[in-house]
Amino acid sequence: MTQTSRHEQSTGASEASAQPGAGPTTGPLTREELQLSARNHSMPLEALRRDVTPPGLHYVLTHFDIPDLDAGSWHLRISGAVERALELSMAALRKDPAITVPVTLECAGNGRSLLSPRPMSQPWIQEGVGTAHWTGVPLAYLLGKAGVHQNAVEVVFTGADAGVQGGVPHHYARSLPIREALRADVVLAYTMNGAELPPQHGYPLRLVVPGWYGMASVKWLESIEVVTAPFTGYQQQVAYRYQETADDAGTPVSRIRVRSLMVPPGVPDFFTRNRILAPGPVLLQGRAWSGEGAVTGVEVGIDGTWLPAQLDKPAGGFAWRKWTLPWVADPGVHILSCRATDATGATQPLEQNWNYQGMGNNMVQQVSVTVE
Amino acid sequence: MTQTSRHEQSTGASEASAQPGAGPTTGPLTREELQLSARNHSMPLEALRRDVTPPGLHYVLTHFDIPDLDAGSWHLRISGAVERALELSMAALRKDPAITVPVTLECAGNGRSLLSPRPMSQPWIQEGVGTAHWTGVPLAYLLGKAGVHQNAVEVVFTGADAGVQGGVPHHYARSLPIREALRADVVLAYTMNGAELPPQHGYPLRLVVPGWYGMASVKWLESIEVVTAPFTGYQQQVAYRYQETADDAGTPVSRIRVRSLMVPPGVPDFFTRNRILAPGPVLLQGRAWSGEGAVTGVEVGIDGTWLPAQLDKPAGGFAWRKWTLPWVADPGVHILSCRATDATGATQPLEQNWNYQGMGNNMVQQVSVTVE
Repeated sequence: MTQTSRHEQSTGASEASAQPGAGPTTGPLTREELQLSARNHSMPLEALRRDVTPPGLHYVLTHFDIPDLDAGSWHLRISGAVERALELSMAALRKDPAITVPVTLECAGNGRSLLSPRPMSQPWIQEGVGTAHWTGVPLAYLLGKAGVHQNAVEVVFTGADAGVQGGVPHHYARSLPIREALRADVVLAYTMNGAELPPQHGYPLRLVVPGWYGMASVKWLESIEVVTAPFTGYQQQVAYRYQETADDAGTPVSRIRVRSLMVPPGVPDFFTRNRILAPGPVLLQGRAWSGEGAVTGVEVGIDGTWLPAQLDKPAGGFAWRKWTLPWVADPGVHILSCRATDATGATQPLEQNWNYQGMGNNMVQQVSVTVE
Repeated sequence: MTQTSRHEQSTGASEASAQPGAGPTTGPLTREELQLSARNHSMPLEALRRDVTPPGLHYVLTHFDIPDLDAGSWHLRISGAVERALELSMAALRKDPAITVPVTLECAGNGRSLLSPRPMSQPWIQEGVGTAHWTGVPLAYLLGKAGVHQNAVEVVFTGADAGVQGGVPHHYARSLPIREALRADVVLAYTMNGAELPPQHGYPLRLVVPGWYGMASVKWLESIEVVTAPFTGYQQQVAYRYQETADDAGTPVSRIRVRSLMVPPGVPDFFTRNRILAPGPVLLQGRAWSGEGAVTGVEVGIDGTWLPAQLDKPAGGFAWRKWTLPWVADPGVHILSCRATDATGATQPLEQNWNYQGMGNNMVQQVSVTVE
């Protein structure tokens, strides 16, 4: 069923833009990819200057339509392998103890459009990221209230958003291993940066799983089900896997690979987005993050020479860490890069680490700057 | 200078994606267009259900980087052909009388990527729109405070955003004829939908010109200059013109042409965005607007047969008007359309009204729905 579904997804593309079943392509961008790019917005890189990303600058990816939910009639169901099934209103949830977690979320497909051949899906360049402060009830607290059976292996989260992907009609749903679901920092959030959740970020309630790519943080959450066998829904078993080929069962995408990005210095050309800068001193800056371990170093590449950047104090949890490097720009065209390393020893690659769905592409960013 | 500038803009495109000076193209989407699409976000059409569009769903177009301004040190300068030049802090502006205006803003380039040949710029499909309530000081009040000279012809608004377009380095700047600048509903806004302006919408202060395409509503406003001769800046004299060819001086883009859009019924396929719907009754709905005159009618086309939609009461000012039409969907593939008419008698065209920059394309929307 897995391979059939993906095949059906490819045949859904229009004749004009993609051969049926073509999968990744070396061809130009298709109308379908433009439609996805128009819907799903990325974080303009100048927003890397900010510790926290406001709504409208934070990246958003929605598989289906954004549901228009009424928080007054909405309920969260907790069911499955639990002592006590629960049905909770927003009013009830807001009476439970709340925590606030600073979290960098990144789309698992970030960097996809830079791959060659290019997997055809949301064509992120490299800005599918953002950092917010999410406030709500710890998931572990609610699971404790419900009482999890000893044979539970996963927790399945289902959103109100529904549609068809790969020929399979479904509500967006993802699971977490029980040990991840019981982490102290996994939150059912009803505020973002201190304000009510915006519609596109999951109003009235979403899951936020710090350290994992964004697909785990189910928006418009309606149901939590504790299960005793691994979840096999489309978004778990077919989508979001590292595969070498269409026929490879692959491994699941989970934690965010180490990455850094730079605020492009100078000013842009409107159409090409090339950067133009006056000669002289400039403070290069950006952010670095990893879902595997703390960021331990960032190097900045100037025309291929790597220099260690200054790291600010960690921002806490899985929020990105600021870095800076003073540079004196001399006339000419320069290629600037940044490369982060985390506590596991993982470093961003200089070459693409290709996979069939275009997941986890944390290849080093390159910014071309014309100093004149 | 005008034509030279545009030529330079075209030669800025990479070899891989555009011939130097090529202008509009029948070729595939370019990397440059994808970069613009990733930065500038549109309004997912399901947000047409809402009277008011929240930040993150409201469209955004920024020519250059989003400035990171400090409202505490920011000042607005009012100068030129006035009795008293003024320099105003945000604290001072907030003490002036405030108004709130409901406004539908649309990008002048909305619909551009549907044109053939396709002008190469921000490749909007048709979602470059949004409606918000903007609160701030009436521009006319501040111009009254400054005292406008009798020989004044235009008012020039300059933002903090800067970069290069068409080879010309400049701050984003646009002018309004003096009679438009003195309209009662033109506002210098510091709140959007009752909350502080988001960074991408012009924080801390922006101009909002109801009824005009979005290019007139200068964001990150820093300077207002009353002038005695027409403004000839790049964004006035080169960009935002209806031209037949590159050599045509053209006419300036100003008011929003009549348009309507529909909430696509049913659910989407993730990749193709095709709509899938169950048979039976469904309430088709959408919004219609015009900057030329009140919306007087909306027709809904079902497989080419036009039926009059029910119009809600006008929302006031230049805000969009809701329309509905009950439909009973029977199995098969159907093409749904909507077509609005305004008080001037203008109606949306069924065929494209092509122009060189891809401005004001208000061609009728078509939604393909599979009922199964």
